[in-house]
Amino acid sequence: MRILGIDPGTARCGYGVIDISNKDGSLLWVAHGCNETDKLKTDAERLNRVFNDIINLIEKYKPDQIAIELLFISRNQKTAMRIAEARGVILLACAKKGLALQTFEYTPPQVKLAVTGYGRSEKEEVLNEVRKALKPGREIGLGKKSGFDDAADALALAIAHFHKYVEEGIK
Amino acid sequence: MRILGIDPGTARCGYGVIDISNKDGSLLWVAHGCNETDKLKTDAERLNRVFNDIINLIEKYKPDQIAIELLFISRNQKTAMRIAEARGVILLACAKKGLALQTFEYTPPQVKLAVTGYGRSEKEEVLNEVRKALKPGREIGLGKKSGFDDAADALALAIAHFHKYVEEGIK
Repeated sequence: MRILGIDPGTARCGYGVIDISNKDGSLLWVAHGCNETDKLKTDAERLNRVFNDIINLIEKYKPDQIAIELLFISRNQKTAMRIAEARGVILLACAKKGLALQTFEYTPPQVKLAVTGYGRSEKEEVLNEVRKALKPGREIGLGKKSGFDDAADALALAIAHFHKYVEEGIK
Repeated sequence: MRILGIDPGTARCGYGVIDISNKDGSLLWVAHGCNETDKLKTDAERLNRVFNDIINLIEKYKPDQIAIELLFISRNQKTAMRIAEARGVILLACAKKGLALQTFEYTPPQVKLAVTGYGRSEKEEVLNEVRKALKPGREIGLGKKSGFDDAADALALAIAHFHKYVEEGIK
């Protein structure tokens, strides 16, 4: 089974793809990255780019299930609204590719709890757990380059979904 | 010139269409209504419905410009986020129909100020001004039925855009 994790955003949209091994149920890294949009474009044009990028990701990696970050509380409400707009077009892309019922939403505390066992973990702890969880597959290049945070968050979302859905059987 | 006003929402999405007369620049009512989505469906499915409805509206009425409500502050942040998701797919629909650069966003105080001259008007005052502005065209059936509020808000958005864009020449 393949899971696509998505950290939504209009400026930057992180993604992470993991497989659950048929042999022993362990996690295997497949891909991660971050799509950016041109800040000189209008909101509508940037959302169009976000939508097209997600369609392309789904066609390329053919995930069975998708996990998206759901943000309700934010220090900057304006930013949170723009993120919600991006989440809207991402959910739409999932629906257009026939994955509406295979798409799941998780808040940041839910992701932290699932990945580290504690809902208020620091970013670095989450990252360490992501690295540990995926290391059996191969060493992944989560270096400190642009978009790295978003890609790591997206992998954490995919891992959180693995724990919640596969291990706990939550639907 | 034809303006489509949209009051976004995942549950209910209001719309209003007005024409600016070639003869004397007066406003003419064309249509208004409210599209609803099935609350038993998933978020992704409902957003897909919202998107398809907007695509159909644009194809049916062929607006030259579109005005959408932009909401940053809300008493219920969860509701505000769901509205922002709907706005995301509506902006995407505008982009997909080649109207990205003809789509404009207005906050509720901006709409109230443009329509009534006061940014904190009551709903009823806005409605009266909408009726007055469109009466030369024909008496419009803004009765107290389901979705009426959303349709009236959408007409107010279209009228606000007329004032801001056409009269003041704001781009």
